[in-house]
Amino acid sequence: ISDNKDKTLLTLLSEEHPADIAEILEGLGPDDATYLFKLLDSELSAEALLEINEDDREKILKNLSAEEIAFEIDELDTDDAADIISELPQERVTEVISEIDDDDHAKDIVELLRYEEGTAGSLMAKELVKVKETWMVPTCVRKMRSQAQEVRRVHSIYVVDQDNHLIGRLSLKDLLVASPKDKISSIYIPKVDSVHVNDKGEDVARLMQKYDLEAIPVVDDNNVLIGRITIDDIVDLIIEEAEKDYQMAAGITEDIDADDSIFDKTKARLPWLILGLVGGLAAAAIMGGFEDALTRFPELFFFTPLIAAMAGNVGVQSSAIIVQGLANDNIKGSMVNRMFKEIGLSMVNGIILAALIFVFGFFLDYNTNISITISISLIIVIIMASLVGTFVPLILDKNGIDPAVATGPFITTSNDIFGIFIFFYIAKVILGF
Amino acid sequence: ISDNKDKTLLTLLSEEHPADIAEILEGLGPDDATYLFKLLDSELSAEALLEINEDDREKILKNLSAEEIAFEIDELDTDDAADIISELPQERVTEVISEIDDDDHAKDIVELLRYEEGTAGSLMAKELVKVKETWMVPTCVRKMRSQAQEVRRVHSIYVVDQDNHLIGRLSLKDLLVASPKDKISSIYIPKVDSVHVNDKGEDVARLMQKYDLEAIPVVDDNNVLIGRITIDDIVDLIIEEAEKDYQMAAGITEDIDADDSIFDKTKARLPWLILGLVGGLAAAAIMGGFEDALTRFPELFFFTPLIAAMAGNVGVQSSAIIVQGLANDNIKGSMVNRMFKEIGLSMVNGIILAALIFVFGFFLDYNTNISITISISLIIVIIMASLVGTFVPLILDKNGIDPAVATGPFITTSNDIFGIFIFFYIAKVILGF
Repeated sequence: ISDNKDKTLLTLLSEEHPADIAEILEGLGPDDATYLFKLLDSELSAEALLEINEDDREKILKNLSAEEIAFEIDELDTDDAADIISELPQERVTEVISEIDDDDHAKDIVELLRYEEGTAGSLMAKELVKVKETWMVPTCVRKMRSQAQEVRRVHSIYVVDQDNHLIGRLSLKDLLVASPKDKISSIYIPKVDSVHVNDKGEDVARLMQKYDLEAIPVVDDNNVLIGRITIDDIVDLIIEEAEKDYQMAAGITEDIDADDSIFDKTKARLPWLILGLVGGLAAAAIMGGFEDALTRFPELFFFTPLIAAMAGNVGVQSSAIIVQGLANDNIKGSMVNRMFKEIGLSMVNGIILAALIFVFGFFLDYNTNISITISISLIIVIIMASLVGTFVPLILDKNGIDPAVATGPFITTSNDIFGIFIFFYIAKVILGF
Repeated sequence: ISDNKDKTLLTLLSEEHPADIAEILEGLGPDDATYLFKLLDSELSAEALLEINEDDREKILKNLSAEEIAFEIDELDTDDAADIISELPQERVTEVISEIDDDDHAKDIVELLRYEEGTAGSLMAKELVKVKETWMVPTCVRKMRSQAQEVRRVHSIYVVDQDNHLIGRLSLKDLLVASPKDKISSIYIPKVDSVHVNDKGEDVARLMQKYDLEAIPVVDDNNVLIGRITIDDIVDLIIEEAEKDYQMAAGITEDIDADDSIFDKTKARLPWLILGLVGGLAAAAIMGGFEDALTRFPELFFFTPLIAAMAGNVGVQSSAIIVQGLANDNIKGSMVNRMFKEIGLSMVNGIILAALIFVFGFFLDYNTNISITISISLIIVIIMASLVGTFVPLILDKNGIDPAVATGPFITTSNDIFGIFIFFYIAKVILGF
């Protein structure tokens, strides 16, 4: 397609949504993509740049001069502009910023770059519609019109006092219904949710979800309005967090896609596999210690994978429930209570499973003592595994570590080892070797 | 608190957000909660009702008459009203609907109840702001004012023709800037994304995320505008889906909380544990078949848990990547290609891990033949496990089954069995027993 018909191509693409253009660009090689990218008019290309995945964006940006990048940046909202600039190598950042035509825009971007990743400050945009409480309705509408040119979507209108302190919000509906003689101070809503610039992104997301907000103002230590966060960025954050937790539970440490390189994938997957390997060696060492029992009770060794698997599964189940509960902030009540409940639950599950083992054992003609050993071990191992699964994430969380690391390989591996150890120890007591 | 000071309580609560009141109600017993609930003014109580979790809501609704419920429903948007009514027992549904004062509201709710769960129809609300292309700007503003009374938030203004066909949207910004002499047909944007009433909720969510939409109109087969979906409901949907996938990966079949009853938790957790048990029995049977090797090569039995654990971990990692890729709709390219890439990746991981086994084996003084057997088995088992992890979800997806069921216990259990079988078979070939 990319040979000569630039004009037809352009008219074709100008009808498309930037997200769709981004997909087309991702499908091309870096040179073709850059060529096509430069062809697009700057509003469209800037938006498309935003939607392209990070790897492909990096390749296109490499082919552009600082001036060309600044030109794209000029078209973007401050938050998106800051996101893209922060991906550039350090030496290009200053270069690109100095090339931005609009000085205010450049200043806002530099401010946003200062905030730490994952904070409200790093998620917010400087663009917003704000009105002073002292204005009359017609002044307000006039001022809003000029502000609205800059703001892609008017979510909420924030009301500030003379010193830019956030004091409330104005509903567009009320403004539509208001008489021209009203003053803003008489029609605004003095209650408004806001977040502090240093609040964590996940907390902002939880707040916005709980109160069904589409935008939330961001204030500094002095309650001065300095930006706003919109729901589209929060949706992206929520999805990203969910994917990270899901991958973590599966034993993948870095964000990777199905189509990433083998090297990236190995880097993300190998650490947890090595952990599993070490766990397996520990298990082998434990079993080696009970070698004497090998000839008299070989069944014990046949059932070790069963015990290990059950310990792992139960642990993962328990930890998943706790990790989600912590994420949703609904883990309440005393630890002792939770412990008794968890023991009760595991007893119920354990007894049902032990009974099944017994039934199978009867039909498959196992030695009764072996059946008893396996059944009792299973109940105890399940209780232990569910306690580990419940309390490891709770303890990690108390110590400021993301509890999500606990689910998956970490819990599985440690429960495998504990489970096997308990199993052989109980067998030793019951069977007497 | 709930003894006599109703008035102080009320003034205290009337300042709170419905979501916070919901939390207070959840903390009370059903009788106190109902008492407090009836005390609240109906707008606040209706909103709070919406935010309460399903179990507690059911208890409060049980204590209310059909008339009282209808009174709450009257205050809610059609989509929320339909959600609550659909939770009632069938015989109360008709009763409540007949008690709703506003006939149009009742009709809209009945219409929404017809749509299947999980479709765009079940997510949409009937409330929206729509204008006809033939109107002039002042007429439009006047009509919008009266429509806006009913709509909590004016997201987008949809433009329809005489027969209610969706033909575009109007930006509030453009309306603010427009001159009173303009006709809507000259200022509206003729491009608007919309979804069909039968589209799946997840697809709607993907579309809204991709295009950063805050509301999307819903049309029927004839492109007639029949409702709109707002981002807050989509945020809830995304979180719910992510939680379901996370729980599924951990072997939990139903949506449960950390504080659900033992019975509910057992119901959700036991099926997967039984699957694991059956897998463990199969593994025991396989190992029993190789009993002859027990005395000569006891190490084989010590290392079985290691092999099983690695097979399980690798399978879960591979399947998690594919399940997420499918959810994000970015699994492209040929199957054969994917297979070679997956084999390459597993070879790299497998060889590194096998080398580690060798090093450990050297220091722990293992028999060389045993080390070779374990190392080679590990590489082959990892390749097999990653192929199973990759292709099982792909095949499930092709057959219209949610691939998320594949991650977790299902993959772990089957890979355990395969892994152990392969391990002993390779051992038999290498060690010759």
